[in-house]
Amino acid sequence: MPRILITSGPTRQYLDPVRYLTNSSSGQMGRWLAQAALDLGHEVIVVTGPVELEYPGLARRVDVTTTEQMLDAVTTHFQDCDGIIGAAAPCDYRPEMVASQKIAKTGAGLTLNLHETPDVLASVSASRRENQWSVGFALETEDARFKAVAKLQKKHCDLMVLNGAGAMNSPNNDVEIIDKAGNVIAQLKGSKALVARGILAEIQSRLIEHYK
Amino acid sequence: MPRILITSGPTRQYLDPVRYLTNSSSGQMGRWLAQAALDLGHEVIVVTGPVELEYPGLARRVDVTTTEQMLDAVTTHFQDCDGIIGAAAPCDYRPEMVASQKIAKTGAGLTLNLHETPDVLASVSASRRENQWSVGFALETEDARFKAVAKLQKKHCDLMVLNGAGAMNSPNNDVEIIDKAGNVIAQLKGSKALVARGILAEIQSRLIEHYK
Repeated sequence: MPRILITSGPTRQYLDPVRYLTNSSSGQMGRWLAQAALDLGHEVIVVTGPVELEYPGLARRVDVTTTEQMLDAVTTHFQDCDGIIGAAAPCDYRPEMVASQKIAKTGAGLTLNLHETPDVLASVSASRRENQWSVGFALETEDARFKAVAKLQKKHCDLMVLNGAGAMNSPNNDVEIIDKAGNVIAQLKGSKALVARGILAEIQSRLIEHYK
Repeated sequence: MPRILITSGPTRQYLDPVRYLTNSSSGQMGRWLAQAALDLGHEVIVVTGPVELEYPGLARRVDVTTTEQMLDAVTTHFQDCDGIIGAAAPCDYRPEMVASQKIAKTGAGLTLNLHETPDVLASVSASRRENQWSVGFALETEDARFKAVAKLQKKHCDLMVLNGAGAMNSPNNDVEIIDKAGNVIAQLKGSKALVARGILAEIQSRLIEHYK
């Protein structure tokens, strides 16, 4: 039985014990991808950042907070999986210094040096075995299709799902699925449940059946 | 009938269309304060940042995202209120520049110049009428009581409720209520519902009855 790893939700990068950088990823896309994969008879592991929603009871859930923790969990669990769908929106900057106590306001503002966090999907995809597949998500606000193809290559993915900022924390989505040659192989629009089923159908026919 | 303005939840300060600074305030304390005030027969307006929970149906709800929006809404609605409870955790830093498109990773990191946002409670408390009262919340991780008294003065409050970082996104709270003289007039520990009723009881006897 194919086992699929799905990353979902945002991550957080703390400045101090109270404040953090994040984004408004809700985990809804990840939830519906998990459901669609379960419906096809696959095993599912969800590695998720902090979200308010529940994942399907049949999926195994692994909770993380930061991008580094997500990378650790994904690296560990991907060993035993056939493929990965990177639907999470990991926070990709972390403060150079994390204050151990709440930073007090001084009236003078604050300069924050941010470092890039490791790219979770790129890291695991780069070292994947030949029979493991990888599907990424790209959220772009300009030159979307061009950037999605660049991300597909940089992250060593088989397919890239492109969506816009409107996807975040919305019940609906509007996506294009792009293959390694840069072709748009599917356009899906509607509820995230419907879009997730469409994405899983493409993964099933193009990746799972192919690698079987 | 006394009308009480309650601020609740976090605010967000965006770097670009996707990423923002925030904190994990859940709005639970604000919800229970609203319920406790309604139970005493008061009218309630809740000005809230983005939260997942529902406020009591009898409370009027005003939604905001940023600290500046919270200040605008509070300034407007406080005109018609007898008192304010500042239970929100407004994000107190904002990026100097907000990018109109998603910032692309370059491999080189990012320097973020943050400015302090306006202090919502201090602003409205400083210009309040003589018969209006103001209660603040202080979340401190060190020198807590000393900092709470300093905040009470800086924010021109009648009472300050002091809690620790453990209060954030927890069903329980453990607080001290401090008066203008710096005295701890109450210590409350338990569910946020119970703590909220205790805070409202102090507000009722010390402020609402006093200003009547």
